[in-house]
Amino acid sequence: MTAAVAPGSVRIFDTTLRDGEQAPGAGLTAAEKLEVARQLARLKVDVIEAGFPAASPGDFEAVRRIAQETRGGIAVAALARCRDGDPQRAVEAIAIAERPHLHVFIATSDIHLKHKLRLSRDEALAEAVRWVRYGREQLGPDAEVEFSAEDASRTDIDYLLKVYEAVVDAGATTVNIPDTVGYAIPSEFGALVGRVVDLVGDAATVSVHCHNDLGLATANTLAAVQAGARQVEVTINGLGERAGNASLEEVVMALRTRPTQFPQLASGVQTEQITAASRLVSYLTGFTIQPNKAIVGGNAFAHESGIHQDGVIKNPLTYEIMTPQSVGLAGSQLTIGKLSGRKGLQGKLRELGHDLDGDALDIIYRQAIALADSKKDVTDADLLALVEQRASEVPASVQLLGWNVTSSHGGNATGSASLNVNGEDRAAAAVGNGPVDALYSAVDLALQPVFGWHPVLTEYEIRAVSAGEDAQGQVLVRCRRSSDEGPGALVVTGHGLSTNIIEASLEGYLVAVNKLHGAEINGVAVAFVAPRVVEEPS
Amino acid sequence: MTAAVAPGSVRIFDTTLRDGEQAPGAGLTAAEKLEVARQLARLKVDVIEAGFPAASPGDFEAVRRIAQETRGGIAVAALARCRDGDPQRAVEAIAIAERPHLHVFIATSDIHLKHKLRLSRDEALAEAVRWVRYGREQLGPDAEVEFSAEDASRTDIDYLLKVYEAVVDAGATTVNIPDTVGYAIPSEFGALVGRVVDLVGDAATVSVHCHNDLGLATANTLAAVQAGARQVEVTINGLGERAGNASLEEVVMALRTRPTQFPQLASGVQTEQITAASRLVSYLTGFTIQPNKAIVGGNAFAHESGIHQDGVIKNPLTYEIMTPQSVGLAGSQLTIGKLSGRKGLQGKLRELGHDLDGDALDIIYRQAIALADSKKDVTDADLLALVEQRASEVPASVQLLGWNVTSSHGGNATGSASLNVNGEDRAAAAVGNGPVDALYSAVDLALQPVFGWHPVLTEYEIRAVSAGEDAQGQVLVRCRRSSDEGPGALVVTGHGLSTNIIEASLEGYLVAVNKLHGAEINGVAVAFVAPRVVEEPS
Repeated sequence: MTAAVAPGSVRIFDTTLRDGEQAPGAGLTAAEKLEVARQLARLKVDVIEAGFPAASPGDFEAVRRIAQETRGGIAVAALARCRDGDPQRAVEAIAIAERPHLHVFIATSDIHLKHKLRLSRDEALAEAVRWVRYGREQLGPDAEVEFSAEDASRTDIDYLLKVYEAVVDAGATTVNIPDTVGYAIPSEFGALVGRVVDLVGDAATVSVHCHNDLGLATANTLAAVQAGARQVEVTINGLGERAGNASLEEVVMALRTRPTQFPQLASGVQTEQITAASRLVSYLTGFTIQPNKAIVGGNAFAHESGIHQDGVIKNPLTYEIMTPQSVGLAGSQLTIGKLSGRKGLQGKLRELGHDLDGDALDIIYRQAIALADSKKDVTDADLLALVEQRASEVPASVQLLGWNVTSSHGGNATGSASLNVNGEDRAAAAVGNGPVDALYSAVDLALQPVFGWHPVLTEYEIRAVSAGEDAQGQVLVRCRRSSDEGPGALVVTGHGLSTNIIEASLEGYLVAVNKLHGAEINGVAVAFVAPRVVEEPS
Repeated sequence: MTAAVAPGSVRIFDTTLRDGEQAPGAGLTAAEKLEVARQLARLKVDVIEAGFPAASPGDFEAVRRIAQETRGGIAVAALARCRDGDPQRAVEAIAIAERPHLHVFIATSDIHLKHKLRLSRDEALAEAVRWVRYGREQLGPDAEVEFSAEDASRTDIDYLLKVYEAVVDAGATTVNIPDTVGYAIPSEFGALVGRVVDLVGDAATVSVHCHNDLGLATANTLAAVQAGARQVEVTINGLGERAGNASLEEVVMALRTRPTQFPQLASGVQTEQITAASRLVSYLTGFTIQPNKAIVGGNAFAHESGIHQDGVIKNPLTYEIMTPQSVGLAGSQLTIGKLSGRKGLQGKLRELGHDLDGDALDIIYRQAIALADSKKDVTDADLLALVEQRASEVPASVQLLGWNVTSSHGGNATGSASLNVNGEDRAAAAVGNGPVDALYSAVDLALQPVFGWHPVLTEYEIRAVSAGEDAQGQVLVRCRRSSDEGPGALVVTGHGLSTNIIEASLEGYLVAVNKLHGAEINGVAVAFVAPRVVEEPS
């Protein structure tokens, strides 16, 4: 049997790439998942849940690559239903990991058993035991095998305890208590966790997985730790289904800020990497972070009211319980001048949480120099935007050669775009009710004859990266193919970055086009997890 | 003495317009505050904390107007420090209210007493008693007088209880326990609240005010209710200083969804008005709501993963603990055709939580008809955007007469704008690194000679209101005057809405210009709360 969690610590199980990535619209490419996994490794979480291999070939491939690459004592987990086929795929994907962690689950509440699984309690228990035993046999005595009782917080307590007892006997070394529908209140959830901790004793680690439907995911997670749970399943920015999961950054910073409430229960997380992780996940998923989000919101460390400003100036402790530095918010938001060479840029980027060299550094350096020609001040935020833009690059079958547009008050806009599509030059012009509409229509006209589809815009956002009228605009678009409709349609994101918002809009549109095109011709390499509808046995 | 909170209910004290509005960048005009107060009345909160009258003449005026207008048994509260001048201004602003509610506070933690107030414990206690007594004398026996011990959760417990006992003797009918720095953990906070409830018994209502720095504001508020607190201070969307306050929608929906955990502790809130309130506050403050925000986030009621979709189709109860309808999310997001006349539009808007008639309805009707000419489908989201745009209207000294712009790949943009400025026509042209930069520079050139300043952009965002390449773009800008710099500078928001993002960008810029100009020439009517730096006595 594997060792339990070290005494005096809480195991941080990050599920950003599994539960987080299941949020509608948050789907990532395999390459993007790998970027996030690397940042999670820098953050030093204990377990990266990399995905749900049975969901799609793309998700299988992403989990396998993360399992292959992740080292340094960090475990890689994969999720599987207790259903023939799933655990096999999961084991296949993680077998190569330095520390494989199999995570099997089945629902145990009567409402799920009756309406979703159509299984009796005894049948569900037998499936749970069967697949835990399978995982233990396949992965050997040292691997972690975790069992989750889906909808545990609405499950009959006697039955729930019986299931946990049986799976521990069958070889589970972690038993997880999910509050799947975000229904629990901290006092009752702590009591439930206490019952399970008493039951399993030292035979297994007790874990919790809390959803945020009532805004209580972090509190339920912390109540569970106070009741003896020693693994917490969390996500960056609280990403996840519906209202999301418990936020990694909130749970970790609460443990750190209130040691008397959590005696000797530190996490091993490098909190100084929190801001970089938060920005990367927000950027790649296109999920914004509200200004008043705890720890990582734009205002989390800002003090407005006169009273507060006065107090903070006199002594920061009057209103600050954590320092911005402790979560990796660089103190300086100052302009960097003409960038004192590659070395200077490298140092600056390291300060911002990004360690770049070689080609990657050269590219950012050239872009930063070019930027300094078109805008007055190149700020920290500009540099971060350049680094993030790089993280979402895709192979380009379609490239932008040129465009122009004119528009005026009360009238339409007219634009033309010329593209290289699979090596062939194509151009088109169109009118629209605005310049972006005109140019996107021109792109559609150029693509349709070649691909048999054109992109359809489902979401569009621009945000200035910094202050000033000459700021860079960061564009996010979401698109699907015109040939692909309904709830199962593949939806991809595209990012663009330019001081000219029209140029940024076109860039983002073409990134989306290339993702949509790549998904079609090159299944595994840039496949997506989004269009999966997995049917439960019924 | 006034009656305590009715047995079997929790009093909902909304501080969106006070603590919420203190968030950096969330400053509202008096007219906007009034719009929010009207929505809070439709939501049927028990108390509207309308502002901090001593902070600025604009805030005083906003509180006075809300006090004058709010009826139907809803109390209007004003905040005041325990410091000569503040309580007098607060009483003056709320005296006219149907139910005035004075809220005085002083810090009680040693760290605040020593580093901020430079008062001894005895001196602070004497000030607290003095101003509670003043409020009671001024407002008479039936008004609510509330006392807050700022930073209560870090205050020595024996001293804190002594202060609460003294203020209740002096006439306070509510004693509030703020977790000012968002430091408390639910279990310890519940214990603290229990001590205060035991102390004051039936003599006063115990209230809590929780901040969200560790993501625990909602949980701490609910733990307090379980320990006997009967007033909760909350904000729409959790708006507020730093990571904000406890969210009204989370607290209210937890009370409603989990009645067995909060027996006979309902609130009187009309939960069906939550979505309309959330959208209005987000729009006017410019604070986005992240997709995974509980209750009001775009994904809060969305179910992505195949497993969940499958379960929800079979029975919604498998994953849904609340219905979207219960928070006023209209089931249909369908297109409305050619708008079946004013009556049809009125019915549709009512369904979306907006009751309009007369001129207001006519304006929206004309805009919707015009919109139907320039885009294919007019959706619910489009109608809501039109209604919201109306909510932020300001008197216009500067009007847009015309503009045009051309831009192309890799090059700059050239644009011209013609304006009517105080009745005089002015035009200018400029180049920029993008079309928005070019046109904003042209506006700056036209304004500078007349006003002696031009707007400086500090933030810029566009979001498509609905799907489709022909969607309306909703623009948010924040600007300050070029003549006004540093942390105390007045920053205003401007909104624009058009299918042409350049037009929407110009519209938003000019709304900001008119606010900046109005703030200057017409102090009280459109004054802002933002540029206040209140110095504590030291």
